Amino acid sequence: MDNSFGNIFRITSFGESHGDLVGIIVDGVPAGLELDLEYIQNELNKRKPGQSSLTTTRLEEDRVKLLSGLFDNRTTGAPICLIIENKDFNSSIYEKYKNFLRPSHVDYTALKKYGGFSDYRGSGRFSGRITAGFVMAGAIAKQILKKYDITIFAYTKSIENIIDEETYIIDEFEKIVELREKSLVRAIDHEKSKLMEKIVEENRQQKDSIGGTVKCIITNFPEGKGGPLFNSIESNISKAIFAIPAIKGIEFGAGFKAARMKGSEHNDPWILKDGKIQTTKNDAGGIIGGISTGMPIEFTVAVKPTASIGIPQKTVNLKTMENVEIEFSGRHDPCIVPRVIPVIEAMTANVLLDCLLIEGYIPRIL
Amino acid sequence: MDNSFGNIFRITSFGESHGDLVGIIVDGVPAGLELDLEYIQNELNKRKPGQSSLTTTRLEEDRVKLLSGLFDNRTTGAPICLIIENKDFNSSIYEKYKNFLRPSHVDYTALKKYGGFSDYRGSGRFSGRITAGFVMAGAIAKQILKKYDITIFAYTKSIENIIDEETYIIDEFEKIVELREKSLVRAIDHEKSKLMEKIVEENRQQKDSIGGTVKCIITNFPEGKGGPLFNSIESNISKAIFAIPAIKGIEFGAGFKAARMKGSEHNDPWILKDGKIQTTKNDAGGIIGGISTGMPIEFTVAVKPTASIGIPQKTVNLKTMENVEIEFSGRHDPCIVPRVIPVIEAMTANVLLDCLLIEGYIPRIL
Amino acid sequence: MDNSFGNIFRITSFGESHGDLVGIIVDGVPAGLELDLEYIQNELNKRKPGQSSLTTTRLEEDRVKLLSGLFDNRTTGAPICLIIENKDFNSSIYEKYKNFLRPSHVDYTALKKYGGFSDYRGSGRFSGRITAGFVMAGAIAKQILKKYDITIFAYTKSIENIIDEETYIIDEFEKIVELREKSLVRAIDHEKSKLMEKIVEENRQQKDSIGGTVKCIITNFPEGKGGPLFNSIESNISKAIFAIPAIKGIEFGAGFKAARMKGSEHNDPWILKDGKIQTTKNDAGGIIGGISTGMPIEFTVAVKPTASIGIPQKTVNLKTMENVEIEFSGRHDPCIVPRVIPVIEAMTANVLLDCLLIEGYIPRIL
Amino acid sequence: MDNSFGNIFRITSFGESHGDLVGIIVDGVPAGLELDLEYIQNELNKRKPGQSSLTTTRLEEDRVKLLSGLFDNRTTGAPICLIIENKDFNSSIYEKYKNFLRPSHVDYTALKKYGGFSDYRGSGRFSGRITAGFVMAGAIAKQILKKYDITIFAYTKSIENIIDEETYIIDEFEKIVELREKSLVRAIDHEKSKLMEKIVEENRQQKDSIGGTVKCIITNFPEGKGGPLFNSIESNISKAIFAIPAIKGIEFGAGFKAARMKGSEHNDPWILKDGKIQTTKNDAGGIIGGISTGMPIEFTVAVKPTASIGIPQKTVNLKTMENVEIEFSGRHDPCIVPRVIPVIEAMTANVLLDCLLIEGYIPRIL
Repeated sequence: MDNSFGNIFRITSFGESHGDLVGIIVDGVPAGLELDLEYIQNELNKRKPGQSSLTTTRLEEDRVKLLSGLFDNRTTGAPICLIIENKDFNSSIYEKYKNFLRPSHVDYTALKKYGGFSDYRGSGRFSGRITAGFVMAGAIAKQILKKYDITIFAYTKSIENIIDEETYIIDEFEKIVELREKSLVRAIDHEKSKLMEKIVEENRQQKDSIGGTVKCIITNFPEGKGGPLFNSIESNISKAIFAIPAIKGIEFGAGFKAARMKGSEHNDPWILKDGKIQTTKNDAGGIIGGISTGMPIEFTVAVKPTASIGIPQKTVNLKTMENVEIEFSGRHDPCIVPRVIPVIEAMTANVLLDCLLIEGYIPRIL
Repeated sequence: MDNSFGNIFRITSFGESHGDLVGIIVDGVPAGLELDLEYIQNELNKRKPGQSSLTTTRLEEDRVKLLSGLFDNRTTGAPICLIIENKDFNSSIYEKYKNFLRPSHVDYTALKKYGGFSDYRGSGRFSGRITAGFVMAGAIAKQILKKYDITIFAYTKSIENIIDEETYIIDEFEKIVELREKSLVRAIDHEKSKLMEKIVEENRQQKDSIGGTVKCIITNFPEGKGGPLFNSIESNISKAIFAIPAIKGIEFGAGFKAARMKGSEHNDPWILKDGKIQTTKNDAGGIIGGISTGMPIEFTVAVKPTASIGIPQKTVNLKTMENVEIEFSGRHDPCIVPRVIPVIEAMTANVLLDCLLIEGYIPRIL
Repeated sequence: MDNSFGNIFRITSFGESHGDLVGIIVDGVPAGLELDLEYIQNELNKRKPGQSSLTTTRLEEDRVKLLSGLFDNRTTGAPICLIIENKDFNSSIYEKYKNFLRPSHVDYTALKKYGGFSDYRGSGRFSGRITAGFVMAGAIAKQILKKYDITIFAYTKSIENIIDEETYIIDEFEKIVELREKSLVRAIDHEKSKLMEKIVEENRQQKDSIGGTVKCIITNFPEGKGGPLFNSIESNISKAIFAIPAIKGIEFGAGFKAARMKGSEHNDPWILKDGKIQTTKNDAGGIIGGISTGMPIEFTVAVKPTASIGIPQKTVNLKTMENVEIEFSGRHDPCIVPRVIPVIEAMTANVLLDCLLIEGYIPRIL
Repeated sequence: MDNSFGNIFRITSFGESHGDLVGIIVDGVPAGLELDLEYIQNELNKRKPGQSSLTTTRLEEDRVKLLSGLFDNRTTGAPICLIIENKDFNSSIYEKYKNFLRPSHVDYTALKKYGGFSDYRGSGRFSGRITAGFVMAGAIAKQILKKYDITIFAYTKSIENIIDEETYIIDEFEKIVELREKSLVRAIDHEKSKLMEKIVEENRQQKDSIGGTVKCIITNFPEGKGGPLFNSIESNISKAIFAIPAIKGIEFGAGFKAARMKGSEHNDPWILKDGKIQTTKNDAGGIIGGISTGMPIEFTVAVKPTASIGIPQKTVNLKTMENVEIEFSGRHDPCIVPRVIPVIEAMTANVLLDCLLIEGYIPRIL
């Protein structure tokens, strides 16, 4: 229940940050897909630490290994098992801080949930590294969605107070991805990117961290999919997105801005254009009544600053049961926003593929 | 799949806005609970239209009727069926606008999803009235949670630009509920309430509508419940909340504000106080790693302005396939924020009770 | 969890034998189906007691009432709520026997499961009457399956030692149904029927009861549906069938006979006939590896004798905690086998429709 | 959906017979269990081919490898991944018979389900080898159930017409296991075992195969667990058991015999004995109304003869589309009944542990 997600396209996560491996079982993959493992590897590379001077230096290799579900290079309809092995880790610091509750870390909640038996090394199951499994599954989902011209694109919309308010239309997918990948923080606008990088670098030097927001845009998703109530696209995407560590908010379309708008402003007028019924703007974020409108699905996600910082913090020593102030050393990623982007794209792909399989829009044999 | 929610405590919604009734099946209710039907009725009354001069005038009676699951006034472990009958409705206007797509209404998406067969009268399954079922189920969940001292309280945090930034501590639950119920917009602060009421009244007169935000605070929820990944409290609450029409955003704790914070600001220091491990502040919103910390669970929700307004709008005439501008008449609720509050509380109660049943914290016989 | 079944086509049962009503919510019904309520009523009539001189005399009216999900006589994609009201019941005898554990009745297990809070009148949720809901849902499923030429037919294969070993081919569905309905025990063979009727009548006079077996044959079910492991057709059908009270066994194809066979006897040879790949016999019961072969799906079910008999029995008086022997009076159905037949057909229809919706074989709009 | 089973204790199967490995993810294992890997290995050894001169000679090593979920030798609450690697296999014969439909094999149904993309080598996902994963998961479940004195014991009740009709009481669990393990066919009665062995040996020499039945007895399972309808113990066990290849029937308690009994014979009288309410016999198989009675849970399973035999059989050549007769060579197991026993025990353990976790009878931290 905790570690599986989806109905027909269903992923099951396993592995620990400092165990042998991190993996994912991907069930419900339609048979007959020629699987591009290099594409999965590329997606994985976007999540991995140490991509730029700005980020944490853990030099994980993160080579995807496929253990089941493929035959003659094609999917068979069987569950696909994908793993990455854990190599470059040092668990000794976790021993050192074993008796201290790191602020905003899972030390306390894991202790209460698992009675002290959970693997605390590298945050175990709570590590961002677990999301490598999400990315591998999502890279399969994306390959299938691409066959139906459905693209998923996320980018850094803000870091601290540097906000890119531009509305992007994803008409040339490969180009905008290329543009984003040129930015060290995965922003689109060059100038904003430079300002964001500066903030991240400052936080890196101060051993502090900084949050940001990610916007995700899905194009060509067919209209009339999803449903009211508990199968709404918003319900399913939000459930998936909040499974990613560090996410603390999500909004669709105008989102929290809608809370300050009048109906006459917020309502998206319908228009017949090029023989197609569309809306003139998209404050609904492509979803009305939980169902896709055919306009781009758009949502924005709030990423909190990582809890791991190198500045003295107040906490409790569990052994002595005293209030103390200590500095937790260890690896440090000043801003995980750029690395969360492939994870957000992946979980979105997983949700949307499942939706289209349930609806019978995508068949079980490709 | 569309109309059921929960694992052990599981609700199934049925009925239409202008059909015979709106109902809910509540499965997994522990046996032996002395059910207070008057309490359910009171919760329902908070959701019903026409509570004040500010709101829509549909005078629904909304008397709760229990059809199954009770014996000698106690729950039996059997599914409980609760309904309200539909009486005061006039579907003629829906006939009138049948060929027009109301902006930001479900006319178009329902058409695409159900091929023109859905019951469009009063928005059918998409009506806010469907949430009366959520409220009835939630009123059962709340009665059970109350036995464990767990309280759920939501209030209007903002309407348009009037925002109540105060941090409330729910130490006297009945008192704060009483305070809120005195406000026509379900705000806590008296002065803010008056300003909000003024805005709502202006929109009512202009036949326009206005959005707002609702904050929800859960107290005494035990620590160590929920889980990482797909069973995170955030995942489960957000899935439930986005099943409510008009919700377009959710944030936990500092939420979107966290995206502009440094780790050194955002991290909640642990402290030993009164022999209990707590945090000195609660930017995590009572959840770390998807698991409850024992601090209050806090989240804020964005409610968009209702789509139904009495101002001319651009749209498409489906019969003639022409772009037109028309004014949709009919009942009009300028601000649904106050009426969404009992629904948010109810869905939160449903999620949290399910969580505590899964964990074995609340037994199957009370 | 207890009271819902299915994935896309999902039923949720509610109501009690001696409460206000017995009902079912049917979710996931494709939109656009012209629903034949008279057909549902006819199916229901086959389950109802008092159909012949042989059975219990409770004269339930059992008029199906539809409370939601229909518009202009067609399904809308919304959940359909169907109920029958309870009228002709007398709960006084249950008061009388409250302190006695009726042998092979649920008195003891319900007590332990629900702590004494369950509605014991008329066996409450454990009553065969609850299956009226299954039948109403199944009558919808059958209407949809019929559009794809898929028919489900069950009949009494044996009562006590009178066994009809004939292999029937369902080529003219309406005719064989007509033939079966002429038999008071729903057998096909006229002579066997007479022998079975005699046994039932003997048991009626002796206030005893008698068991039997039911065979179910599904024709025209498409090949290649179902799946290995946990989604096997056998897994799904058996789970559904054991939800029916009084069922104690199920076997597919040769079933328990296969346990005494050699592979060279049991294996069904493949043959190309009329341009179609078939098997020359069907010991597999139309399912290999959990997947349909395109041959008729066949299974047989064991129905135990009803526990309610009018003969003195040994049991425990819960109040005095003494071993006693008493005679339980009350209504008595000497053989429920004929009345279980529509329930078996219905649950089979529910399972198979769900399967074909999951596979995308039957679309979501008809 | 196809490859996962269970609610809280949830297993997910992956791997192929002739791929790299066969594995299982076991989610929902309570934290704090000291895991005995040697016990898992022993269970696995009971399933493995080549245990005696009677069985197939594939000499799989089948060493269990644990890839996740353990820390300091204890379970952590995280998903446990267990695998066995595939080493000793030769897929060339599958190439040879690629165009022929082996009778009663999955060649045809897999072709129709997966469009020709499934891994046919060694029957891929349909191989009995996949059940090694069930056994590994079950060996964890059994360790937990043992802490609550719940034991699961299955044995060969019949092979062909040699039937052991004895009713065994499992009072000394270890002893009866020892007795069974002395029998080459896992029977209890020494003389019956010898007769069974003789039949198996005959079939081995004739390159034929033979079916049988397995009886399973669960002792000390607490009363009042399970539920009516879709959560009945019979429903859940049968769903699990039919996920095992070669199973074609299941019956609980008196089962099909009940179909020939009168109520006065079949009803189990209640009796107060040693201060405990029990039944004087157990034709109900320990389950009434889907709920455990506290008496042993008993069921019997029909195992068909394996489809792989070395005798010429009629079939279709898919390439030439001609009816042919050919002899399929390859490894041959004349009777899989003894090897199915650990699988039946394992799936039963998985179901029952899940049930007790849902009920809150077994806590989430041990």
